[in-house]
Amino acid sequence: MGRITRPVRVVRIHDGVRGERPDRLAVEEPLELRVGGRPYALTMRTPGHDVELAHGWLHAEGAIGASGDVLRAQYCAGSVLDDETGTGVNSYNVLDLVLADGVTPPAERHTFTSSACGVCGADSIEALTKQGRWHLADDATTVGPDTLLQLPARLRQAQRAFEQTGGLHAAGLFTTDGEPMVVREDVGRHNAVDKVIGWAILDDRLPLRGAVLQVSGRLSFELVQKAYLAGVPIISAVSAPSSLAVATADSLGMTLAGFVRDTSLNVYSHPHRVT
Amino acid sequence: MGRITRPVRVVRIHDGVRGERPDRLAVEEPLELRVGGRPYALTMRTPGHDVELAHGWLHAEGAIGASGDVLRAQYCAGSVLDDETGTGVNSYNVLDLVLADGVTPPAERHTFTSSACGVCGADSIEALTKQGRWHLADDATTVGPDTLLQLPARLRQAQRAFEQTGGLHAAGLFTTDGEPMVVREDVGRHNAVDKVIGWAILDDRLPLRGAVLQVSGRLSFELVQKAYLAGVPIISAVSAPSSLAVATADSLGMTLAGFVRDTSLNVYSHPHRVT
Repeated sequence: MGRITRPVRVVRIHDGVRGERPDRLAVEEPLELRVGGRPYALTMRTPGHDVELAHGWLHAEGAIGASGDVLRAQYCAGSVLDDETGTGVNSYNVLDLVLADGVTPPAERHTFTSSACGVCGADSIEALTKQGRWHLADDATTVGPDTLLQLPARLRQAQRAFEQTGGLHAAGLFTTDGEPMVVREDVGRHNAVDKVIGWAILDDRLPLRGAVLQVSGRLSFELVQKAYLAGVPIISAVSAPSSLAVATADSLGMTLAGFVRDTSLNVYSHPHRVT
Repeated sequence: MGRITRPVRVVRIHDGVRGERPDRLAVEEPLELRVGGRPYALTMRTPGHDVELAHGWLHAEGAIGASGDVLRAQYCAGSVLDDETGTGVNSYNVLDLVLADGVTPPAERHTFTSSACGVCGADSIEALTKQGRWHLADDATTVGPDTLLQLPARLRQAQRAFEQTGGLHAAGLFTTDGEPMVVREDVGRHNAVDKVIGWAILDDRLPLRGAVLQVSGRLSFELVQKAYLAGVPIISAVSAPSSLAVATADSLGMTLAGFVRDTSLNVYSHPHRVT
């Protein structure tokens, strides 16, 4: 747990009484992702499962489709110079990926192909539809509402670091019987989802038919996007979805549940899968 | 409120009873920011206060320092073609900024100046320190713990859309008497902070000495970075800070409070300002 949580001392003021006490924080550190030695992305993340994170990120960027598209992933040794010795040390925060022949590295983000692209939600959904490989509308997966209601607690049980810090998002893939396939934590909710989908890619499980993706927080367009590209038919969140998350799920044939708490939940799209 | 929340119908399952009811979602739409006609960034955000968002973003990227650095901000008319008429319509999702002479547009994100930069938390803090213009350690602002404890409720009171959707982050600048200067909402917490700092830039209030930045969620490195560059001496959050948020605030002389809830709060750095 050394790199997932970190001890600190805090001043705690409770009912007007001031004291000092030990506490633990969720670790946030930058990860530089390189492809063939060239820097491509910098993300703030919680260390751990970085290779999965990289696979999930490359997949969401449309660069890879299966585990065989990445030949090698390794931390760059010597990426940081030690002040005292002048030699390179491994920070475990620079990860280089070597892609298979014929696999094109992702375009750099924030680069636009057309300077006149009309930006609206519909454009985003259309672009995503063109990128997708799986047809979710055909996916006959169903899940019982009682199973869905249990997933937030099961996700929490599998979160080792949350209890210590209260500061980590989680994402988990579950079977429709509510059994966890994988749970990952991160300070960034998009990273947590990249990690679980990266795990699925490395385990050659795409498309994720029959799986439910449960997340600890809210649902944005970006999370629905990542789930769709991995073929996930059902996505479920403890908190609220955004308008574009719902419109996207609706358009793509994905079932989206939100405010899944204790005894109630909302289904925002394709409710026929919740039976 | 038309573009901040959007009505939907949801299937609600409560104690095993299934029904349909109206609900409202927080709106998420893409915003393309252009500088001098050239696309620079695409962010998913809640529409509203886009000009403030753009100013806050350009400021955090190090491109502008004051309101005079931006000559004009306007939505691109005709950025989306209407299918029926074939003419351009304004989506209000493409915003073009014209910078003053001598103001350099920001470097594109994810572009690296050095391919051998050692990535670790200390590097991130050091780079930020070099970018900063204000010396927070000198800021003599203090705030009472009772005032800090009231800020989450005051932030919530000023959030018009949260109550409807449960899905919006908020950020607010407050005086040390707890009076709100500005509160902004967004599906993205970094956008909410960009909007309030953009407001301050447009109102020529930088550096924000004597101000407290209160946010609704967690505190990451990125939020501390934005606050530091605007000269905010005290940042406070309802939820947990990350390790790098605390290390950065500590290094830069910023007071960071977290888990500010009801009757208790934690101070993670420079607690002398909470008196």
